[in-house]
Amino acid sequence: MLLNYYQCTIKMKNLLPEKTVERLSQCRRVLLNKLDQEKEFIFSHEIAKLLHLTPVQVRRDFMLMGYTGSPSKGYNIKKLIKAIGYTIDPDESQNAAVIGMGNLGKAISKYVEDKREFLKIVANFDVDEKKISKSVAGIKCHHIKDLSKVIRDLDITIAIITVPANDAYDVKELLVGNGIKGILNFTPAPLHVPDHIYLEEFDIITSLEKVAYFVKEK
Amino acid sequence: MLLNYYQCTIKMKNLLPEKTVERLSQCRRVLLNKLDQEKEFIFSHEIAKLLHLTPVQVRRDFMLMGYTGSPSKGYNIKKLIKAIGYTIDPDESQNAAVIGMGNLGKAISKYVEDKREFLKIVANFDVDEKKISKSVAGIKCHHIKDLSKVIRDLDITIAIITVPANDAYDVKELLVGNGIKGILNFTPAPLHVPDHIYLEEFDIITSLEKVAYFVKEK
Repeated sequence: MLLNYYQCTIKMKNLLPEKTVERLSQCRRVLLNKLDQEKEFIFSHEIAKLLHLTPVQVRRDFMLMGYTGSPSKGYNIKKLIKAIGYTIDPDESQNAAVIGMGNLGKAISKYVEDKREFLKIVANFDVDEKKISKSVAGIKCHHIKDLSKVIRDLDITIAIITVPANDAYDVKELLVGNGIKGILNFTPAPLHVPDHIYLEEFDIITSLEKVAYFVKEK
Repeated sequence: MLLNYYQCTIKMKNLLPEKTVERLSQCRRVLLNKLDQEKEFIFSHEIAKLLHLTPVQVRRDFMLMGYTGSPSKGYNIKKLIKAIGYTIDPDESQNAAVIGMGNLGKAISKYVEDKREFLKIVANFDVDEKKISKSVAGIKCHHIKDLSKVIRDLDITIAIITVPANDAYDVKELLVGNGIKGILNFTPAPLHVPDHIYLEEFDIITSLEKVAYFVKEK
């Protein structure tokens, strides 16, 4: 596929806003579903409805990646899926590690396995001797004291933190000190990272508290 | 505690915006941490720093719940925690169910256990006969065909969906048909619910795709 002007700009300058990446990711998922239903074309207003967005938002996101549909037929679903992958997926698969092999860590390690080609969990970590060297979803668990070596040896760029909240800060410091580039924080402790690291916080307790609040008020 | 004007308004009219509830929930967590450190008072700019917010945002959220601090000493941490609980926690504990006892469902069922008093998981559901009647974290697993009866018998108002994406729609329809009031969706399938139901979507795949994208671009 030839790169057009927009795609070149995005590739060069990291222009996509966080919310656009989020929406493109969600969009690809609903499109993959439609593909199973043997649908070939889709209109922006159909995508908008599936994603709780306005058609204008949908079209603007596609424009940002330099993609336009046909006014009469809509967007070709297969091509759109490819364009989104081209825009948001890394050229090379990233290696990730899960830190903390409690229930949540184990679940996430298994859940992520084979879900996406561009992200591969290659190591788990814990401090509990009973868990060390055991595998979850075929991935070996290392002692956290070996983190530096394992990150270097396996070229790990992304870490998923699932340790108890009290240990989150220390683990984050260790990861930052070892050159990790992206962190997904599943603990309820808010973290701070330097600007060159991307942090995504995933807060289950707050989600539960929101549901309970709004259910109470309904 | 006497209700002031703002608290009365909030209780009566459901005035708090989603983002405020989210920030108050996160704020309570960092305050509970500070309490462990035997700190008595805290300034809005300290809270702001911990939560990646501006001090103005923090003060506005507290004002919305009718709470003000002392300019010289800041906020009394214990009282602030109480005020937040008073504002966002339901008066009565809500009963919740987890639908789908795969790894993620099991992890969430265990994770939520005893984390908060106001939300109690009282039932798990699955379709796999091998899982039925077994317990996870002391909570019995029922067959999904008994959902209506169990929801009624145990007065369940909140459902946490952790089934495979392809089953999410059917499960949601079943829950809506059985009068559930709040849904936490952990599947990658976006759901639609009627206005009287509160929906919170929790999208692990999109978070991973965002981390991978921004790590690639850094």
